[in-house]
Amino acid sequence: MEKALEFYKQQRRKIIAFNYVGFLVGWDMETDAAEQSIMADSEQVAVISEMTYQLMTDPEFEQAVATLYSQRDSLDDVLRHEIEVAYKSVRDTKKIPPDEYAAYGELTSKAYPVYVKAKNENNFELFRPYLEKIVDYCRKQTKWLQTDDLAGYDVLLDMYEPHYNQAKYDRFFNALRERLVPFVKKVTATPVKTPDWAKQTFPADKQKEFCEYLRGVMCFDKSRGIMKVSEHPFTNGFGTDDVRITNHYYENKFDSSIFSAIHETGHALYEQQCDKSLNGTLSGGGASLGLHESQSRFYENVIGRSRAFWQVHYPVLKQTFPEQLSDVNLDDFLAYINTAERSFVRTEADELTYPLHVMLRYEIEQKVISNELQVKDLPQYWKTKFNEYFGITPPTDTLGVLQDVHWAYGNFGYFPTYALGSAIASQLFYYMNKDFDVYASLQSGNTAKINEWLRERVHKYGSSKYPDEILLLATGEAFNPDYYIDYLINKYSR
Amino acid sequence: MEKALEFYKQQRRKIIAFNYVGFLVGWDMETDAAEQSIMADSEQVAVISEMTYQLMTDPEFEQAVATLYSQRDSLDDVLRHEIEVAYKSVRDTKKIPPDEYAAYGELTSKAYPVYVKAKNENNFELFRPYLEKIVDYCRKQTKWLQTDDLAGYDVLLDMYEPHYNQAKYDRFFNALRERLVPFVKKVTATPVKTPDWAKQTFPADKQKEFCEYLRGVMCFDKSRGIMKVSEHPFTNGFGTDDVRITNHYYENKFDSSIFSAIHETGHALYEQQCDKSLNGTLSGGGASLGLHESQSRFYENVIGRSRAFWQVHYPVLKQTFPEQLSDVNLDDFLAYINTAERSFVRTEADELTYPLHVMLRYEIEQKVISNELQVKDLPQYWKTKFNEYFGITPPTDTLGVLQDVHWAYGNFGYFPTYALGSAIASQLFYYMNKDFDVYASLQSGNTAKINEWLRERVHKYGSSKYPDEILLLATGEAFNPDYYIDYLINKYSR
Repeated sequence: MEKALEFYKQQRRKIIAFNYVGFLVGWDMETDAAEQSIMADSEQVAVISEMTYQLMTDPEFEQAVATLYSQRDSLDDVLRHEIEVAYKSVRDTKKIPPDEYAAYGELTSKAYPVYVKAKNENNFELFRPYLEKIVDYCRKQTKWLQTDDLAGYDVLLDMYEPHYNQAKYDRFFNALRERLVPFVKKVTATPVKTPDWAKQTFPADKQKEFCEYLRGVMCFDKSRGIMKVSEHPFTNGFGTDDVRITNHYYENKFDSSIFSAIHETGHALYEQQCDKSLNGTLSGGGASLGLHESQSRFYENVIGRSRAFWQVHYPVLKQTFPEQLSDVNLDDFLAYINTAERSFVRTEADELTYPLHVMLRYEIEQKVISNELQVKDLPQYWKTKFNEYFGITPPTDTLGVLQDVHWAYGNFGYFPTYALGSAIASQLFYYMNKDFDVYASLQSGNTAKINEWLRERVHKYGSSKYPDEILLLATGEAFNPDYYIDYLINKYSR
Repeated sequence: MEKALEFYKQQRRKIIAFNYVGFLVGWDMETDAAEQSIMADSEQVAVISEMTYQLMTDPEFEQAVATLYSQRDSLDDVLRHEIEVAYKSVRDTKKIPPDEYAAYGELTSKAYPVYVKAKNENNFELFRPYLEKIVDYCRKQTKWLQTDDLAGYDVLLDMYEPHYNQAKYDRFFNALRERLVPFVKKVTATPVKTPDWAKQTFPADKQKEFCEYLRGVMCFDKSRGIMKVSEHPFTNGFGTDDVRITNHYYENKFDSSIFSAIHETGHALYEQQCDKSLNGTLSGGGASLGLHESQSRFYENVIGRSRAFWQVHYPVLKQTFPEQLSDVNLDDFLAYINTAERSFVRTEADELTYPLHVMLRYEIEQKVISNELQVKDLPQYWKTKFNEYFGITPPTDTLGVLQDVHWAYGNFGYFPTYALGSAIASQLFYYMNKDFDVYASLQSGNTAKINEWLRERVHKYGSSKYPDEILLLATGEAFNPDYYIDYLINKYSR
């Protein structure tokens, strides 16, 4: 037992170092590396994947994990959970053929720049062969990793959100569909016109300046992470002390970068506020994607689109753009950032229509993974389904099936966590307000009190517990989507 | 033999992947990573160093290299050279205690941000404990790696420039000292005043724009590498297809970024023009630091400070800075960029006084490594010696002993290659002119013809031959410092 623990810890050091490498390579490829460099570097990524695979499937490591797993009740809580997850991971990793694993690492590295080009040029055909191979791998993955409890798409769903399967998601999305779809149809019946002031040019450097201000308002520790530019905003963290976000500045759509900054900083706070004792273990970072997204959505929507927040910070925004916003008062601004309308792009969608975008992807993934739908038919299927839910048809694939980067990474099963995240955010908000007046606390000028509550209830645990466990500890109640639907209907009925 | 070759190639793939990781980590730490992130990440760097060390000292790998080495005459030229170098490297790596090697990796990672802070705050004491440990390691290294042929400082010199030892460098620097020092004293006797126009503000973004133009003039393939900002400009390459440079924009010293861009692009061309067949081997990249520096110095000084070059490109510079340069004609500009004067900072030194800066460092390193001089005495020693050679005394350590990053990386033995590089550049220039009129070729608007000559004579070989071999092949003559001294005295006598 002691020998197994010692070996486990030695191997864990190496796995963590490779995690750092993966973090860094991803960061580099999306922010720095030139087009042809990515192609060249991806060959190295394949070798690194191979080595990581060798570490995870090292028989001595497997033996150590198995030994610790068999005696897990004698371990402390954090290590017991970690060993449970490692045991499952070792089991799963062993099931994947090494050559397929290595080839897949290379494939997704190469797919990314092609995806960017395809999206920019509205050319799905360019990306299609890559996506077909990715889907092929994901389908094979569901076979390799099948267990008594998990099969088909459930295998992928569980990778992103443990304990959530199609049965649960179907119930969640059905509830959304029943109560929200008719409501959204009513609210968005009349097309909204973007006010002229919002169409002005807002210089990128000024947007960046204001987003840096927002990182300060949210008490993000800038000595432990930077903000940079990439095609699609994202957060990537390694431990509590290296947490990075990216942003994208559209000069004719200034609010995009603002809400991306708040959203990504929400993710980043979750990483930065994890208990430092979890650095050097595999129990740091977020507990799941859904819980991670609950943090970003909480800050972005519940806080970042509230009157209470902008009562304090709108004057600073006006100062940053004195010409553009001279005739725009707080009410105009709040109405604009809380507009609900039918639109094409998920990441630019408003709080109300957002979950419908996710519902569409969930349904498509179900069909793709179960082989009912083929990659070549995706562009048309997307358009048809989109029209059914939103009453409008995307004019291009750039605004349709090519809009999200996730499939280029092979992240099938990821999207549903976005809707789950928003729902969890509402549940947390409900219980946070029982402890203190959340909106009143914003008068302090920053989100310190909110950060503190989330650190104690959610962040500090890192991934040392399952996400449903953490939600139960934080709110005293299991996941309940009613808080979310009530919150949306209440807010947009006003 | 065949089995040994197969194993060697498999292990080489992994070593190359770790080289890529090292390349990327270095790039990230100097351009992106936040201050505290570097401290956290450096723990991972230590683990990665350990793994690299394990690969290099894997008994099976050593056996494979030894087998191939014993039968090296049956290998092709490239592989034979590579095995010779690997044999020496394996032998050397084995001699370094693993724990010291790992600790040193972590030390140099942590030393870098401290060095930057110490330099910014003119606080040598902050950096001193780190530098002491680094020097301590370097001294121990000379003991560990000692052979019949190499001892003391020679061990370090050979790491950066194979086949060059103190005996050779002493001769080279003595020649420089005898012919150049008195000449420089005469030429720089009268202090030169920086013209007022050069002290104006030249906005960083415009400087960057012009430097990007220069990368175009030099036919740098931008699809295979980027230019970014860092404290100290540098080039870092991985294979032919990922070659990156950095720059630093001083708004009150616009020519600094211009010559850094030309210098670093010179390095970068060497990497990009290596024969592509050497990718995936350990025979790519530059043959040595001296030869690498010969390329950067050739472009920076021989080409980049010539009338022929600026006759074509000065109009573009004027266009970029129409206000600042409205009253400055080509002659004024050429006089300014070819001024020789006594100054403190090596990287900002002119072509003529530059080698004296290197000579100073060479002498200091000799004394530090041989234990005649201690780290605590460096600031004062630097000032005294500097005054002896230049007749002026640095007012701060920032402008003295703290000015270069090299020692923070533990790169003792590196500096002398800078002077060697300039000397080789002159030798290459002499022979290039026998083949075609180099300055006349610049009328084409780019350096394509020069690049072509250097590709065929120098770049294509990568590191598949020793640097002295390449110089002999390129010019038909062994290294001869007279071309350099003749060139300098001739140019600055005008």
